[in-house]
Amino acid sequence: MAKTTDSKEKTLAAAARLFCRQGYQGTALQDILAASGAPRGSLYFHFPGGKKQIAEGAVALGDKAVRAFIVQVAEASRSAESFVSNLAKGMAANLEASDFREGCPLATTALEIATDSETIGRATRDAFTAWEREIRQALIRFGINAKQAASAATAILSQLEGALLLARTYRNLDPMRCAEDAMRLLVRSDRGHSR
Amino acid sequence: MAKTTDSKEKTLAAAARLFCRQGYQGTALQDILAASGAPRGSLYFHFPGGKKQIAEGAVALGDKAVRAFIVQVAEASRSAESFVSNLAKGMAANLEASDFREGCPLATTALEIATDSETIGRATRDAFTAWEREIRQALIRFGINAKQAASAATAILSQLEGALLLARTYRNLDPMRCAEDAMRLLVRSDRGHSR
Repeated sequence: MAKTTDSKEKTLAAAARLFCRQGYQGTALQDILAASGAPRGSLYFHFPGGKKQIAEGAVALGDKAVRAFIVQVAEASRSAESFVSNLAKGMAANLEASDFREGCPLATTALEIATDSETIGRATRDAFTAWEREIRQALIRFGINAKQAASAATAILSQLEGALLLARTYRNLDPMRCAEDAMRLLVRSDRGHSR
Repeated sequence: MAKTTDSKEKTLAAAARLFCRQGYQGTALQDILAASGAPRGSLYFHFPGGKKQIAEGAVALGDKAVRAFIVQVAEASRSAESFVSNLAKGMAANLEASDFREGCPLATTALEIATDSETIGRATRDAFTAWEREIRQALIRFGINAKQAASAATAILSQLEGALLLARTYRNLDPMRCAEDAMRLLVRSDRGHSR
């Protein structure tokens, strides 16, 4: 049983990484098999629904990783400003560590197929919504009022997603630094307004 | 000759739209042919380099369209705040008009293949850089100092790209509105600092 779970998890981890790097459409089942090292039979056994089913699992994995990252950064930060700085810095470090190949784990899949596949569309929507919620709750804990925190959380997630896209394309971290400055200003101003 | 040019342009326009909606990897030459209505022979004649060559042309087309949009919005706006508002509103209107299928014409291709194809990577990089430059120049004309305008232009493009991604995934315009508010605040504050 442990082995079976292993190969399922390996398959999902490999798929998540490939979808992040090259997208859903550019990833063949064969690529996932090769990257995971899992036997072909286990792939068909665990994922009778094929690539779409693997994608759902990979989206769930990416969702969980980003959510955990946001929670962890929120716990390690002492103010809304340091929170958004640390989000930008942490994401920038991950992007650089992957040689600018791994930005947001869900963005590519979301753009490619979210409007064409109801199941994957819902999964990416739910993931982004959950990330926004974590950001919003952190902002509220740092003293921003609930209404402003909701709008700021959406803007912050957009800012991070867009900066990851630009930084990946430029292969440099300038967009992450500009995003960081803009987000600090946003939460500083929101704090001011709410007090 | 007019006819030949027509079918080349039709092919590129069809490809640009398909890449925007479903990505480079998810678009087959056959899809481009079907959508363009151009004869198969003309495709091979105009694009001996195949899909990659078509993608370069499609990126150039998307680049030109967004650049013209930014210039036009800048000319129609009377302040940095109205400029960023109008950028967000115009992009939101386009996204909604396409039933949330067409956001940024280059984002999907950039995420999928910009790191794997040097030519397309450079083309998307050059396009994003050109958009940043147009935004920066407009901000400077509206009274923001050059250094702040450069950083703000990068943050604004990130904000718009990320908001288009979220709005497309959510199938609603809330992220565009939150982005608009955040960008207005950014340029308002930058103006304040620079005076």
